[in-house]
Amino acid sequence: MQESDILLRDLDDDGIMRLTLNDARRRNALSEAMLGELGAAIAEAGANPSVRVVILAAHGAAFCAGHDLKEMTAGRSAPDRGKAYFTKVMALCSGVMQSIVNCPKPVIAEVTGIATAAGCQLVASCDLAIAADTAQFSTPGVHIGLFCSTPMVALSRNVAGKHAMEMLLTGDMTSAARAAEIGLVNRTVAPDALREATIEMARKIASKSSMTLATGKRAFYVQRELQLAQAYDYASGVMVENMLARDAEEGIGAFIEKRAPQWQDK
Amino acid sequence: MQESDILLRDLDDDGIMRLTLNDARRRNALSEAMLGELGAAIAEAGANPSVRVVILAAHGAAFCAGHDLKEMTAGRSAPDRGKAYFTKVMALCSGVMQSIVNCPKPVIAEVTGIATAAGCQLVASCDLAIAADTAQFSTPGVHIGLFCSTPMVALSRNVAGKHAMEMLLTGDMTSAARAAEIGLVNRTVAPDALREATIEMARKIASKSSMTLATGKRAFYVQRELQLAQAYDYASGVMVENMLARDAEEGIGAFIEKRAPQWQDK
Amino acid sequence: MQESDILLRDLDDDGIMRLTLNDARRRNALSEAMLGELGAAIAEAGANPSVRVVILAAHGAAFCAGHDLKEMTAGRSAPDRGKAYFTKVMALCSGVMQSIVNCPKPVIAEVTGIATAAGCQLVASCDLAIAADTAQFSTPGVHIGLFCSTPMVALSRNVAGKHAMEMLLTGDMTSAARAAEIGLVNRTVAPDALREATIEMARKIASKSSMTLATGKRAFYVQRELQLAQAYDYASGVMVENMLARDAEEGIGAFIEKRAPQWQDK
Repeated sequence: MQESDILLRDLDDDGIMRLTLNDARRRNALSEAMLGELGAAIAEAGANPSVRVVILAAHGAAFCAGHDLKEMTAGRSAPDRGKAYFTKVMALCSGVMQSIVNCPKPVIAEVTGIATAAGCQLVASCDLAIAADTAQFSTPGVHIGLFCSTPMVALSRNVAGKHAMEMLLTGDMTSAARAAEIGLVNRTVAPDALREATIEMARKIASKSSMTLATGKRAFYVQRELQLAQAYDYASGVMVENMLARDAEEGIGAFIEKRAPQWQDK
Repeated sequence: MQESDILLRDLDDDGIMRLTLNDARRRNALSEAMLGELGAAIAEAGANPSVRVVILAAHGAAFCAGHDLKEMTAGRSAPDRGKAYFTKVMALCSGVMQSIVNCPKPVIAEVTGIATAAGCQLVASCDLAIAADTAQFSTPGVHIGLFCSTPMVALSRNVAGKHAMEMLLTGDMTSAARAAEIGLVNRTVAPDALREATIEMARKIASKSSMTLATGKRAFYVQRELQLAQAYDYASGVMVENMLARDAEEGIGAFIEKRAPQWQDK
Repeated sequence: MQESDILLRDLDDDGIMRLTLNDARRRNALSEAMLGELGAAIAEAGANPSVRVVILAAHGAAFCAGHDLKEMTAGRSAPDRGKAYFTKVMALCSGVMQSIVNCPKPVIAEVTGIATAAGCQLVASCDLAIAADTAQFSTPGVHIGLFCSTPMVALSRNVAGKHAMEMLLTGDMTSAARAAEIGLVNRTVAPDALREATIEMARKIASKSSMTLATGKRAFYVQRELQLAQAYDYASGVMVENMLARDAEEGIGAFIEKRAPQWQDK
């Protein structure tokens, strides 16, 4: 497992992989380097059987400030005024966000501070999120002439239309409490209780069968894009395969016999 | 009208068909027998012009505990390890859930106690739900290695993504109050006020034109799966047909003349 | 700019176009005349570069009572019992609602009083909505045999399924506070603070680049109808084009240089 300066990786004995954005000086901006590290870390967590759950955390006052605007601006010096460069960065960023959705391991955002633009998108892209009650969220692109169009893909799949539009059109900060109300995060806790709350949730999930979690997470994102009848056909097929898997037989048997299940991969 | 031991049917003078899950010993599990009874009762309620609204209630401490795991496990003894049997049961269950959605009569869940797995799906599949404030909800399949993939089809069409994911990935119980906050039920009332609250809602709906309710309910589920422009084309056509129907002419006439409407089927 | 009696138009120096439904005698019903005026005003606001944001307000106790039932009923005297007429009115109304969605300028509903049937649809169709805490909302078509099938297209894209169904099947009034809870409006304020609250929100949005707002608003409604991967492909392309636009270069430059941006069209 590699270690970089800007993204720390820490795997504990429960199978919880803690990824920590560690570029506080740049407010954990999603620079090309950070996106590369993050994408690689998510891919590795997905492939590593020892990883059961991923926590995405951050060092510093900001959770993540979105794209690195200085780096983006430097791209303008190219003969095409940056078009090829912007295309590359957007594809990279959108790929990382989707890799979180497609990762077979559940990903929990632990939101310590402000999460803005693509940083807000990062929270929205995780399966679950717990925020410090001091955290704040915004999609402030309108302030700088650059609408948060890619962040809104994730945002608008988390919260109701008018709530998303208010964030996008005004660029205003949304408090952690309001973020919990509208569904952008699961809940808020006091800052000094955040780490423990996230780990507790991660540990609970890590105690389940990884096969079952991977099956279910994948099915969740597939079925939600299907029409009802197709979704039921698909999900019924998933259930049948799941029933035939060793961990379901063990889990159901353990339940009937009132004992703790022993998962295949644990 | 048939009567079975495990599903009671009671039609009152207002056209309210009360279906009561009555297998408290098995926590009202959706056994093959129960699914068969429920599917038949929904089909009959849909076809019977005397039925205007359906209430789905339950006897015992549990509203519904989902699939009958002992019955499912017995299916494993077949040479194919149960594949054909599981396929049959999943098709049966998904069919019953969709028959609630497709039933021309509104269906209201009256949730007395805990509703878990396919029991939670049953609540999510109803058009409306009122819960005792002591009720609880969960999709606990992860505990037994069997992700609640079919329940999540209904659940994820009721509540926001992160709320659904928290229930699915942790298997934790959700209180009735929280279920109301996230949109899984319409509201909660004290346990001893539940029956009256559900009947009051049912009676209000039963006073409307059945033709109008059937037209609107069907249109609701069709249009929500269309893109905006197509949804408007479709719904505009529904409105025109509805305007030409006798009950709309009568209803609008009565409104203009400030008198009570007389529906065709009442 | 034209002025009519039933729809007032007022454009201020900040680029805020205030459209006021002014047919209190008919509870601001969406008569053919009103729909015609409203459609024309939205189209003009969209095309007029001096207009940066639209506020949709109303005079009188009702914000908007929906279709004009007397006018609709008069249509029944035609040989086809009104079919051609109803088809025309529905197409007109659905067109106006979609023109709000497709208008390149953000549209904010300022909901003073009750908004019912197509009046509730009007609120749901706006990008944002602020309501007096005395306002009320309903889709009462079931009372008159005419299900609110077109209003539900907009309503069901704003609020959760069971919340929409409760309004549609019961026809009951929803309070402003409840409308805010379920996402039908962004928030509520005291009646005498409403106008100022809406203008403050409009002014904030009007201070942004119109190019950016138009780009983002359009992208919002396009991407929400796409599947996740397609939405990201589409939105990434939008971001690249937006980056190459003059206002993004100016906005990002101003941000880095810590000065106020000068938008091209301001």
